[in-house]
Order: sequence, then C-alpha cells, then structure tokens
Amino acid sequence: MIQTITGNKDFIESLRGKRASFLLCMSNTATANTPGITQAGIPGMLHLTPTLDAEFISIGEVRSLGTIAETPKGVPTPALLTRAVHLLHPFREIELLNLGLEITPKLEHFKVHTFSIAPSGSIEQGASIPAAEVFEKGVAFAQNLVLQSDYIILAESVPAGTTTALATALALGYDARDKFSSSFKNAPEGIKQRVIDQALSHVNESDDLFEILAKVGDNMLIFNAGLLLGLQNRDIPIVLAGGTQMACVLLVVNRILQMMEGELDSSKIALCTTKWVAEDAHSDIKGLLEMNDFSINAYYADFDFSLTAHPALKLYDEGEAKEGVGAGGALVYALLNGITKEQITRKVESFLR
Amino acid sequence: MIQTITGNKDFIESLRGKRASFLLCMSNTATANTPGITQAGIPGMLHLTPTLDAEFISIGEVRSLGTIAETPKGVPTPALLTRAVHLLHPFREIELLNLGLEITPKLEHFKVHTFSIAPSGSIEQGASIPAAEVFEKGVAFAQNLVLQSDYIILAESVPAGTTTALATALALGYDARDKFSSSFKNAPEGIKQRVIDQALSHVNESDDLFEILAKVGDNMLIFNAGLLLGLQNRDIPIVLAGGTQMACVLLVVNRILQMMEGELDSSKIALCTTKWVAEDAHSDIKGLLEMNDFSINAYYADFDFSLTAHPALKLYDEGEAKEGVGAGGALVYALLNGITKEQITRKVESFLR
Repeated sequence: MIQTITGNKDFIESLRGKRASFLLCMSNTATANTPGITQAGIPGMLHLTPTLDAEFISIGEVRSLGTIAETPKGVPTPALLTRAVHLLHPFREIELLNLGLEITPKLEHFKVHTFSIAPSGSIEQGASIPAAEVFEKGVAFAQNLVLQSDYIILAESVPAGTTTALATALALGYDARDKFSSSFKNAPEGIKQRVIDQALSHVNESDDLFEILAKVGDNMLIFNAGLLLGLQNRDIPIVLAGGTQMACVLLVVNRILQMMEGELDSSKIALCTTKWVAEDAHSDIKGLLEMNDFSINAYYADFDFSLTAHPALKLYDEGEAKEGVGAGGALVYALLNGITKEQITRKVESFLR
Repeated sequence: MIQTITGNKDFIESLRGKRASFLLCMSNTATANTPGITQAGIPGMLHLTPTLDAEFISIGEVRSLGTIAETPKGVPTPALLTRAVHLLHPFREIELLNLGLEITPKLEHFKVHTFSIAPSGSIEQGASIPAAEVFEKGVAFAQNLVLQSDYIILAESVPAGTTTALATALALGYDARDKFSSSFKNAPEGIKQRVIDQALSHVNESDDLFEILAKVGDNMLIFNAGLLLGLQNRDIPIVLAGGTQMACVLLVVNRILQMMEGELDSSKIALCTTKWVAEDAHSDIKGLLEMNDFSINAYYADFDFSLTAHPALKLYDEGEAKEGVGAGGALVYALLNGITKEQITRKVESFLR
C-alpha cells in the first residue's frame, strides 16, 4: 500500500504502470569527516558510500570496496531496497549524477553525468560551495534532460546529508530544529548540534541566499533546487525519493522563489519516502513540507521488515536506518507496479546470504 | 541469475528494464539433408524447422505442420523457451528475417524481412552462396534498421547450423575442432566429420575469404557478420542470442576485419547463451570467443529444468538440446526483467500438456 502524507492519491495513482528513470545524485561533503556524525557507511570509508551505493544499485556488486556499505551497528545500506526493486521491476534506466565525488563509481555502460562539481567542504569551516554555479548546473541539466521514460525518480546518497540539510533549513530561517531525521536511531545530537552551531556562526545577516547556501549547504541540495526549477517548463513528473533531505531541497526552492518573487507549479512534483521516515518520532517530514508557500503531494511506502527474521534488516524496524539511495521512492515504484512486500523482502534477504 | 562467461556484468546490467526487439534469422542449408547430421527437427521435415520455430514464437502455434518440431528422441525445440519468455515479458517486437527458406512462415501482421536470398547448398558439394552479396545485404539491413526498442536480440534457426559453423571456423583457419556444440548429446561425430572433411576438401589455398565462405558457410553466418559491421555506426546495442553458431559469426567478423585491416567497437555487442551451452563438456564457447582479436562480453542464463518433472524437458538437462531460436538470449531477457525460473518452467510446461 502507498500512504498519503500530504495532498491526495491522484498524483501517485496517475503514475501506476508508468516507466521511471532512476537518477541518483552522489555527493561528498567533508562534513562527514567529523567523527560520529553519520552512520551512513563504513568508518574511515564514509566518503566511499555514494560510490558504492551507485555501483550496487547498477550492477549488484561493489567494486570500489569488498563489501556493501554497512553502518557501525551492521545496518546495511538502503541501496539494498533500491536494488531489490530494480531486480523485481526494473527502472527504465539508471543514471548517475556526479555532484562532487571523491571516487567515481567503476561502471561501464551506465550513464554517469559529470558537472565539474568538486566535493564540498565541511560546514564547520564554511562549505565554500560555488552555490550559484551549482544551482545553474542543476537548472541546465533539467532543461536539457532526455528521458526514455515517463517520469523521474530522483534519489541521493550524501553521507552527513541530514546534517547539512538541517543546517541549511535553519540558516534559511525555518524553525526546523526538531523536524529533521538522522540515519541514527539515537541521533548523535551532541556532535551534530555542535557542527550545526559552528556552521551557523559563519552566516552573516548581510549574506544573500546563495552566500548562505555556499556556507552551510551541500551540492545535492543546491543542484536539485536548480533541477526542480529547470523542470518547470518541461512536462516531466518527478518523484523526490527521500526523506528530510529531499524536503530541504523544497525549502531551498521555496526561498529562491520568494527571492525571485516566482511561483512554483508543484503539480508535477511529489515526495516519496519510507515508512521509517514517515513514522519517525524524532522528525517531522509533514511539518517540513508544510513550511513551504506551495503545497505538494507526499507519500510513503507501507513497507517494513516485519516479514523477515534477518537481524540486520530488523534494525530498520527499530529505527536504525530510515531512508537513502531513493529507497522510499523505489518502494513506491514497486508497489505501483504490483510487486509485493513479500517479494521485496525475499529479494533483499537474498543479498545478505 | 545471469552469469558472466567473458567480460564483466556492466553491459548486461545496463540493459535491465530496457526493451528489446527480437530478430529471428531463418535459413535452410541443404547440409541438413545428410541423414543423421542434426536433430533440430522432424526427420524428413528438417527444412521446416525454422519456419515452424518462427510461427511458434510469433503466434504460439505451428501452421506449416501439425506439431511443434521435435527431435527424434522427442526433445522439443528451444523455441518453447523463447515463446514462454515472450508470454511472460513480451519483446517490444518480433521480426523475422528470411535468409533463404524453403517454406515461408504462414503469418500475418508480423514483419518478415525478405532479401531474395536462396537456401544454401550442402557444404558437401560446396554451398554455392553468393557470399559477398549476402554479406552486403546484412550490412545494408543494419544501416537501415528502424527499431521501436532499445536493443536487439538476434537469434537464429538453421538446421545443421553447427555443422556449417564448425566447417566455417576450420576453413577460416581457427583451431576450433573441439570447441563446437551440437544439438545432439552424443553428437554424430562420424557423419559430421565426414561432411566437414568433404566441405574442407573444396577449399583451395588461393580462395579469398568470401570464396571460402561461399563454399563452407551458411547464409546466417555471412549475413550476420555483415549485420554486425553495419551496426558499427549506429547506437544500438545487440545481443547475439545463441551458442557456438553465434560465436562463429564473430569469428567470421574477425577475419573480415583482419582482411580490411579494420577494428571493431565491440562495446555494444554481447553474446548470451544457455547454461547448457556454457556448461557443455563437449564444446568451448569461451575458447571460441577468445580466438578473436577483439574482446566481447558474454553471458549465460542460469536456467535449467531442475524444477520440472516433465521427461521431455529433463532431456535438456541431460544435454540433448542446448540452444537455438534465441533461447539463451530470451532467458537472459526474462531474468533482466524480474521473471523467475519457476515462472518460465511453468509456462514451458503449459505448452506440452
């Protein structure tokens, strides 16, 4: 079942049976180097997470390291869910967007879009992102995008991305402190808080929107704000496949529109996430979406790991991992195409044997 | 599961979820009239095999004869597998190439390409193929091909085709005697050997490449060598769906390139075959592929009939039939699109009730 978070069912029902292109935005921010800030990846190898995620969803193996990215407690990457869906009901195509990677995925035959965007700095020192340039690259990408499918599922893999997203929302003046999710069950509030406070301390009252984003954002947030606006003149529905980070993309869009005194036709945009995000007591995706001047349809896939006995997967249901690598959007795509919870569960289990 | 024979997974994974056109090359060679040389078909009616295969994969019934082509021991044609896949996850289109048939398939609404190519003679007497002309027709076909899909699955049905393929490889100077498959479990080496020796006796040292092909080849081998070269300037991936015969097409291409001092961009070409070919102790598909100057990705579908109790299908697992009518490529296509071994098995069984 697909559940509605905001709006109504019509948008997502209109995509039933349609073909999707899966676009994965991969980016590194040095913010992830702060010890203990994220559990999205292998300690000491966090920068590899988006690279490994891209390899795994595309070809089912990781080439840039021996094993699938796991969190310290052994929670496997949500890329498992995305890959399972791709095996059960393939995306029309998978394309990869290099939005500043330390290590490029080792893939042949897959389209990897490059934009000459460097990994961003840590927001503790000011991220030093050429924000207007990254934004413009997102706009141009959307304007020139050629698809073989009916709609886009836009996903992300950015270690420490919830930290940069929260910092961005706060710096942009949203009262969002308690609304952001973390890849941790017991989110490391102390460390995260310190990094965010440090990040915010660099923001001056005279900074304009892009100057703020340059200091506290990440490439994914800024590029995708541009991508969404670049899609406005095109007739391509888009699913933002993610949780609070994708919600933050919309918060950025909202501020850009206010600055430009523009309006958004949000009828072709929806957000799709996981049940773990939608039901997370420590964040509020609905609240974040409702902070925008525009309204937006948002959904979650009613999928959990209640049908498995695998201890590593059970940790998802205990709140240890919640979203990422487009898992929520992929699950919704599977449910839209007749794939069952049972099938998805068995396929994910098959990766862990 | 799809297993890699040569190369890496990337090519085939990039086709996951993409749509394929299934092109069946049908041809008769009088070589099949030698008693006992092939078991691909009904004794006395061997020439009908490609015609019946085409009818069966297209519409699910055979019109030019009452029953599905069976080998003398009652092994049903691999067209059953191709048809099963087409029912479970249809090809975008099926098109038929008449490369010299005694009897045209009785089909309406299906595209049957004709090329004014006559059935070829027996290689025992020199096949008398207008080789350069057939080759040129393959080139032209590829250059003008209009597809509704993302890639081609190229299949063949040529009774006695493994005999002409082995003769061709040997005549072209490849040390391939122990590398070729047969549709028989206990391949009729005596008869085949005699026919091939006879064929090779017609080849003179002064013969050029096309003169050799004219004597010992078949239309499918020569046409498809042209087709592959004609595709070089087009952005269309192609899966050679077959075993040692399709490998022989590549051996022919290799000699043509050596003659022309040309190079092949093999990045958009792969060979996909069955497990029965890949694991055949009496042939060596990998060895054949590695005889070329270029490298090529090759895969097999990890499918067998272990899930059935049907005695006629069990014969496949005993090595009685191995490949043909694009079965290997069709199985890979099914696996790429979420279809399971169980589903394929049940569908094939349903044809035999």
